[in-house]
Amino acid sequence: MGLTGQDIAKHNSRESCWVIVHGKAYDVTEFLPEHPGGPKIILKYACSFQGKDATEEYEPIHPPDTLDKYLDKSKHLGEVDMSTVEKEEKEESPEEAERQERIARMPILEQCYNLMDFEAVARSVMKKTAWAYYSSGADDEITMRENHSAFHKIWFRPRILVDVEKIDCSTTMLGTKVDIPFYVTATALGKLGHPEGEVVLTRAAKKHNVVQMIPTLASCSFDEIMDAAEGDQVQWMQLYVNKDRAITKKIVQHAESRGCKGLFITVDAPQLGRREKDMRSKFTDVGSNVQGGDKTDNSQGAARAISSFIDPALSWKDIPWFQSITKMPIILKGVQRVEDVIRAVEAGVQGVVLSNHGGRQLDFARSGVEVLAEVMPVLRERNWEDRIEVYVDGGVRRATDIIKALCLGAKGVGIGRPFLYSMSAYGQPGVDRAMQLLKDEMEMGMRLIGCSSVDQLNPTLIDTRGLSMHTTSVPIDTLGLSIYDPLVNPKAKAML
Amino acid sequence: MGLTGQDIAKHNSRESCWVIVHGKAYDVTEFLPEHPGGPKIILKYACSFQGKDATEEYEPIHPPDTLDKYLDKSKHLGEVDMSTVEKEEKEESPEEAERQERIARMPILEQCYNLMDFEAVARSVMKKTAWAYYSSGADDEITMRENHSAFHKIWFRPRILVDVEKIDCSTTMLGTKVDIPFYVTATALGKLGHPEGEVVLTRAAKKHNVVQMIPTLASCSFDEIMDAAEGDQVQWMQLYVNKDRAITKKIVQHAESRGCKGLFITVDAPQLGRREKDMRSKFTDVGSNVQGGDKTDNSQGAARAISSFIDPALSWKDIPWFQSITKMPIILKGVQRVEDVIRAVEAGVQGVVLSNHGGRQLDFARSGVEVLAEVMPVLRERNWEDRIEVYVDGGVRRATDIIKALCLGAKGVGIGRPFLYSMSAYGQPGVDRAMQLLKDEMEMGMRLIGCSSVDQLNPTLIDTRGLSMHTTSVPIDTLGLSIYDPLVNPKAKAML
Amino acid sequence: MGLTGQDIAKHNSRESCWVIVHGKAYDVTEFLPEHPGGPKIILKYACSFQGKDATEEYEPIHPPDTLDKYLDKSKHLGEVDMSTVEKEEKEESPEEAERQERIARMPILEQCYNLMDFEAVARSVMKKTAWAYYSSGADDEITMRENHSAFHKIWFRPRILVDVEKIDCSTTMLGTKVDIPFYVTATALGKLGHPEGEVVLTRAAKKHNVVQMIPTLASCSFDEIMDAAEGDQVQWMQLYVNKDRAITKKIVQHAESRGCKGLFITVDAPQLGRREKDMRSKFTDVGSNVQGGDKTDNSQGAARAISSFIDPALSWKDIPWFQSITKMPIILKGVQRVEDVIRAVEAGVQGVVLSNHGGRQLDFARSGVEVLAEVMPVLRERNWEDRIEVYVDGGVRRATDIIKALCLGAKGVGIGRPFLYSMSAYGQPGVDRAMQLLKDEMEMGMRLIGCSSVDQLNPTLIDTRGLSMHTTSVPIDTLGLSIYDPLVNPKAKAML
Amino acid sequence: MGLTGQDIAKHNSRESCWVIVHGKAYDVTEFLPEHPGGPKIILKYACSFQGKDATEEYEPIHPPDTLDKYLDKSKHLGEVDMSTVEKEEKEESPEEAERQERIARMPILEQCYNLMDFEAVARSVMKKTAWAYYSSGADDEITMRENHSAFHKIWFRPRILVDVEKIDCSTTMLGTKVDIPFYVTATALGKLGHPEGEVVLTRAAKKHNVVQMIPTLASCSFDEIMDAAEGDQVQWMQLYVNKDRAITKKIVQHAESRGCKGLFITVDAPQLGRREKDMRSKFTDVGSNVQGGDKTDNSQGAARAISSFIDPALSWKDIPWFQSITKMPIILKGVQRVEDVIRAVEAGVQGVVLSNHGGRQLDFARSGVEVLAEVMPVLRERNWEDRIEVYVDGGVRRATDIIKALCLGAKGVGIGRPFLYSMSAYGQPGVDRAMQLLKDEMEMGMRLIGCSSVDQLNPTLIDTRGLSMHTTSVPIDTLGLSIYDPLVNPKAKAML
Repeated sequence: MGLTGQDIAKHNSRESCWVIVHGKAYDVTEFLPEHPGGPKIILKYACSFQGKDATEEYEPIHPPDTLDKYLDKSKHLGEVDMSTVEKEEKEESPEEAERQERIARMPILEQCYNLMDFEAVARSVMKKTAWAYYSSGADDEITMRENHSAFHKIWFRPRILVDVEKIDCSTTMLGTKVDIPFYVTATALGKLGHPEGEVVLTRAAKKHNVVQMIPTLASCSFDEIMDAAEGDQVQWMQLYVNKDRAITKKIVQHAESRGCKGLFITVDAPQLGRREKDMRSKFTDVGSNVQGGDKTDNSQGAARAISSFIDPALSWKDIPWFQSITKMPIILKGVQRVEDVIRAVEAGVQGVVLSNHGGRQLDFARSGVEVLAEVMPVLRERNWEDRIEVYVDGGVRRATDIIKALCLGAKGVGIGRPFLYSMSAYGQPGVDRAMQLLKDEMEMGMRLIGCSSVDQLNPTLIDTRGLSMHTTSVPIDTLGLSIYDPLVNPKAKAML
Repeated sequence: MGLTGQDIAKHNSRESCWVIVHGKAYDVTEFLPEHPGGPKIILKYACSFQGKDATEEYEPIHPPDTLDKYLDKSKHLGEVDMSTVEKEEKEESPEEAERQERIARMPILEQCYNLMDFEAVARSVMKKTAWAYYSSGADDEITMRENHSAFHKIWFRPRILVDVEKIDCSTTMLGTKVDIPFYVTATALGKLGHPEGEVVLTRAAKKHNVVQMIPTLASCSFDEIMDAAEGDQVQWMQLYVNKDRAITKKIVQHAESRGCKGLFITVDAPQLGRREKDMRSKFTDVGSNVQGGDKTDNSQGAARAISSFIDPALSWKDIPWFQSITKMPIILKGVQRVEDVIRAVEAGVQGVVLSNHGGRQLDFARSGVEVLAEVMPVLRERNWEDRIEVYVDGGVRRATDIIKALCLGAKGVGIGRPFLYSMSAYGQPGVDRAMQLLKDEMEMGMRLIGCSSVDQLNPTLIDTRGLSMHTTSVPIDTLGLSIYDPLVNPKAKAML
Repeated sequence: MGLTGQDIAKHNSRESCWVIVHGKAYDVTEFLPEHPGGPKIILKYACSFQGKDATEEYEPIHPPDTLDKYLDKSKHLGEVDMSTVEKEEKEESPEEAERQERIARMPILEQCYNLMDFEAVARSVMKKTAWAYYSSGADDEITMRENHSAFHKIWFRPRILVDVEKIDCSTTMLGTKVDIPFYVTATALGKLGHPEGEVVLTRAAKKHNVVQMIPTLASCSFDEIMDAAEGDQVQWMQLYVNKDRAITKKIVQHAESRGCKGLFITVDAPQLGRREKDMRSKFTDVGSNVQGGDKTDNSQGAARAISSFIDPALSWKDIPWFQSITKMPIILKGVQRVEDVIRAVEAGVQGVVLSNHGGRQLDFARSGVEVLAEVMPVLRERNWEDRIEVYVDGGVRRATDIIKALCLGAKGVGIGRPFLYSMSAYGQPGVDRAMQLLKDEMEMGMRLIGCSSVDQLNPTLIDTRGLSMHTTSVPIDTLGLSIYDPLVNPKAKAML
Repeated sequence: MGLTGQDIAKHNSRESCWVIVHGKAYDVTEFLPEHPGGPKIILKYACSFQGKDATEEYEPIHPPDTLDKYLDKSKHLGEVDMSTVEKEEKEESPEEAERQERIARMPILEQCYNLMDFEAVARSVMKKTAWAYYSSGADDEITMRENHSAFHKIWFRPRILVDVEKIDCSTTMLGTKVDIPFYVTATALGKLGHPEGEVVLTRAAKKHNVVQMIPTLASCSFDEIMDAAEGDQVQWMQLYVNKDRAITKKIVQHAESRGCKGLFITVDAPQLGRREKDMRSKFTDVGSNVQGGDKTDNSQGAARAISSFIDPALSWKDIPWFQSITKMPIILKGVQRVEDVIRAVEAGVQGVVLSNHGGRQLDFARSGVEVLAEVMPVLRERNWEDRIEVYVDGGVRRATDIIKALCLGAKGVGIGRPFLYSMSAYGQPGVDRAMQLLKDEMEMGMRLIGCSSVDQLNPTLIDTRGLSMHTTSVPIDTLGLSIYDPLVNPKAKAML
């Protein structure tokens, strides 16, 4: 029955290129030039691993419906007799052996007392390339780290002697009642961290009654993630706008028909950023200097490869069109200055996310929370603070960070990497505990600041004088630091 | 005569649970669910150490009158024949052996030249869990460290050519004449550091003629501490307000009847803060992942366990009631912004302590001394600076810190941990030397700033421009720092 | 035929001093006192290496036409029979052996993802003295490092939803169209880093269509560098003004006649700065304390030795003279405050370079980009921003740095050391990749800031509040740091 | 002839205490209680080293005329036959052996390129106690380090195109023409660093034509230092005012009669500061915990012991008296705020030194140069800048520091420790080179800032915005830092 490994192995060149995924064979010869990740990565599998199974590498970066969607049926060659397919004898590298040992000695879940702890564990147990993809930021990662640091520039002015016996942390976001003012923001390639991918986050969000934003670049398919929702669970959709508006329209209207309650259009990524840590992690010593040829492929991390479809021409002129194709609330994700918030209000959108894409796009973009401090006074001056919902993401690690954002005027905050890390380290129980810790911290923080519900949070409860002083406590570029030879005092004479 | 170890050992379950403390047996079965520290910790001793003596663990966190107060007489089972009680053969851990060696090599007292030195010694000789309890702060311990750093943002503008031959450091606090403007502030669980507990501080305070504030959560009983006072020695009382106001009333009136001269109501702790260093120190590897069950118990340090009685509903409305039940001056401890100082004046209390609870409650609360700089100009503007006494605590380590606070307008400062550390390391001689060092430093500091008495200290003698710049010299969160992977330069090829 | 090594070897003293360079012998006896680098260095070769070849040491710091220009023909003694010249058996030092091994293991070019990476590689493969010459700065190197750090004080305020499909990074500089707004600024002694010297940069500049500025102190001769240009490639000339104006006039007019399109007069170097790292690298243990005598020589790096001809009396009064001898646009290189930019406009020059000479002259001079932020608002206020072209150099390492400078109002930026490093590590392919990386970064940065051409860059796109806060993130003097003995806590007793 | 070691050895108690110094015996029994350094240190030598020679310890901290001045002739017991005095067989400690090896391998003088280099060498070759005395500061040494850092907050705004061929660094101080605007300020106990003591500085000052200020607490006698001057060399006198004004009067009038040209009255030291590094270095493990008794002696460094005669009652009221007893210009040394400079002008003194005593007195006193920036604008506003000469000391290490002070308006700067260090490491050649380096740096700095004489230095040449931001770049207290236990991430399980 079906094809054999030997059959496939013959098609190992640009001229004829077959691959095996999930027990089926595909002829991708004609697709090679269109592959968003470049042809080289496919050829690598077709050529080097002739007739072997490509599933393991394929899986995390392709939603399951990818081949059906993008490869003509005629190229689906049918089932492969997997018993004829040579098993790749992966020799375990010393690095991988060390990782396995770290996994064996992983701290138990109860030892994680805060969101940073999950990150520490994830770093030690994740594959190097997966860690590099999740943890990397643009250029010198100044903005990525500043996102975290910026919250440290805001201090509290707590009220005392307020009855805080009962604390209500719930609020609404785009009309949805949630238990605590954060949502799970969209992050790509969930299966790099966990074999089940984004549906793990769906289930945890349900449990804690918070909203999940579904990423365009998910490892699971959109429908899988929607299907994982239960009852009246609310989900939003993050959208990279495709150059082909017909595709975009199809995606948006499908989402609305499936019950999505918000359309978050990413506006800070006309081109994906350079994440050098990710690039460097991809670099393999052997041969990379001899192949040459396919330039773009050479120094790219996962992210840039998968993003070639994004339309860099997207502009304000397109907003009315979006408003014409959907009734979902439209939120611009990645707004970075007050002028554009004003414009967003004027354009009639329902919300903005003040965000720099987790520090993965333009280095030296300001943190979302700093932009928030710039935005809200202007909105209030115009009495516009209720005409738009303002969200912020980037760097949130403590419930006190959430409280600070709400004091400034945010409706809620998005949290991304921490849930990826808790999922990568401990699966759904990890995400569950991470959310529970945030809830515990939030309740405590509300008590200690003297507020029993989130509507009581207001600017007089914080001291933001330090927020705009970029020059202080700013992360240092570690590359610049590492190449500086410090001056030294005179050296002693050599011993005789 | 009496019960034997074997008798007790049989009652080792939730259904029947007996423990031995100070040579007597108690049936705590019914008390288990009410135990502020959770049932698990009791069961641990009853079950694991069947029929052994629990005194050592019980002692530091329960004042001697605890069992009388909280356990019905019928559950007091009477004396145990201790010769029948199996001595626990504690195998000395390598950690403990190292600690014992450090104790053997402790620096002599005269080598401590300042308050930080005591902390260094205490850290090396205290038990890990005791050290963790004393030294920990909330969340990332930013506020805890900021308390210390904040004083470093205030600089002096000393006067010259003033006759400073004779220096008088004395002042009055709530009408009491003291030799130097600090008091021993309330800190919990003194026996964790020294077997005698808080009475050590009482004696040292007497010797140096300063006031001691008696903590609600002392290891000694309130009366023991009062009894340790001599002559006309003045003591104050720190109060966590109980949900049951009848208990609170009894405590307050008892204190007044015993001669307490001030009632310091803690207002910054409707819930005790999360102190992760403390939590982590409690974590024991073995078994903690298999027991499960009693959730709250799992990730709690000593502090949270013992505080469940505190009333989170305490509010401004309660102040008149306190004024109705006592004639003692009432001082609000833990005020954190000028608006609440104003309100305190209006409520007619006699004082406030600007404090963030030693950085153990809300992380990113501002330091007391910074709040002081916010408060005093407003009070002076209203000519209210004499209507209330303003104290500050947190981070005081040098007499120059005291001088800075007094220049700003404080009546005095509270000092807590440094005396715990000097007591833990060297007992009463340690506390004595710590206080003497402060006196020596204070006299020198007064001379060098050009003031011969504390009433001459005033705002023109300091430069506070740096005080409000939160973004600078702010402690970094070490967790965030430790999980960041810095970018690295290209790696050399592997050696062949 | 010709002289022999033995002939030369006899002339090894101040009284008669012959040297071999490029296979020819020269009698430099009379030239000794005039040698800009001092007589000692020549005597060292003549005496210590009697009759050996001095070419290797001579080459990088003398343009090929030096001997023709500065040594009378009568002292050219003619060809040497090199077979009679003893080959110097250089014993390879352990240091050099380690360097050779580092060279063997050099990362491949594709592993360099940014300009700092080249510096890291160059540091590991360059000779110590060459690295010291290139990498050193004045005094404590505060300004040198500040140049880099200053850019980190400027943050972005990106626009969103702008059509950035097509990005045009081209601009004009002094009328020349260039592909990207940087030029290769003048740096001395290119052959220290690469045997071919500055012509490598000429070729790379051609490839990327940017301007090269030719240094006065090049290793190649001026004409060699001009000759290396192709087609309509544009070059500028950097000028150290000679005390002898006739020489200066000859140089300038020759440059103009060869087609140079801009005359950059260096105004920040009336005396070359003290670069202690360079000095220290020159220090050789043996004998340096016994020779004595020639003072200036003793503690000088390469730079100071070669600069004695520069005229410290150059002043504003000389500008009209320059305008009278050339039609080339005149640009003052090294302007450091707004007052002098105003004066430059009034003097009628065509441009200024805000520069502190790469931090190699006056330590604590401000960074060029900070001066730029001081200059442009004043020019705009007077509507003078088009009367002069303003350039900036120093510290540029990322295209975002270029974008920041252009947002502030610069016409372009000069980049020096990064191209030296990429050339030293990888030759022309290194420079080529460095420039390509800048182009890639620039295109991405333009997209992400929301501008499709450089004329759209403007001050509202940046946040410069941090720029003037010198006290923050300022490099620390490492010498001062290294000599401080921190206070320590009491020491434990000695083990018995 | 004379006494024998055996004779002396019998008098080894408080009741009868003889010591040998410089070959003579003295009966100091009655003097014991009056000894400024406490009796214990004398008894130590009399008792422990019975009948041995105390000269080595006595020498550096007692000027040669001390015994004549303070011990009645009747107690001078006459010559000792030193052949009968047992030589102390000092067993060389491993520490001392290491120091001797460091001395053997000392860098040669020419390797010192700046003033910090001398400090690095001195630290490695000086005796630990001497280093501790020179290098220590008050409390946490924040002010001491800030003195150095404060200069780093001032940046230059250099002028270009100024004729700087000839540079004249000379100026006048109190009417004396000097070659460069620094003077050798007074520092105590020069023989700790060099056997000849302060006269080494006298000779170097002559060579470079700068003024030396003679310290009250010199190791050499006042007259020895005056005698070491040559020709018209100018010296000033630093004065600690004695409680006994008759002594003070005698000292002052003697100085005037010997030709002293300035009287610098120290006003920042009514009590000497606590220098814990110095104290700690004095601590000797053995026995210090068993002796007890003489409290003050116990935790004192050299400085406090020798200063008990200083009058803490000195006040503004005393100034007219000084003016009545001398015609020398009177300068107040240690002024620390503008109010007191105003008062000094009104009191009619000729100058002030803005100083915090090298950070050895009040920690958190501001740096002199910061006070200077506060003082000069106020003086200029009143047109008083010529009514008084303003000097500054503390932290000067580079000629750029001098230039900064002069730009602000100082007449000159005092330099202390750097000359002690260069003297301690290399003797007079060290001081000579240190001064020459400053001159070279100064000439270069003047050229590069665009000034040919010091009268051209003015406030527009500097940017002082960073100067008052205390919170930034402020030295951290290393004690506080070292005792903090950072939070850590969860620990991996133990290996099985």
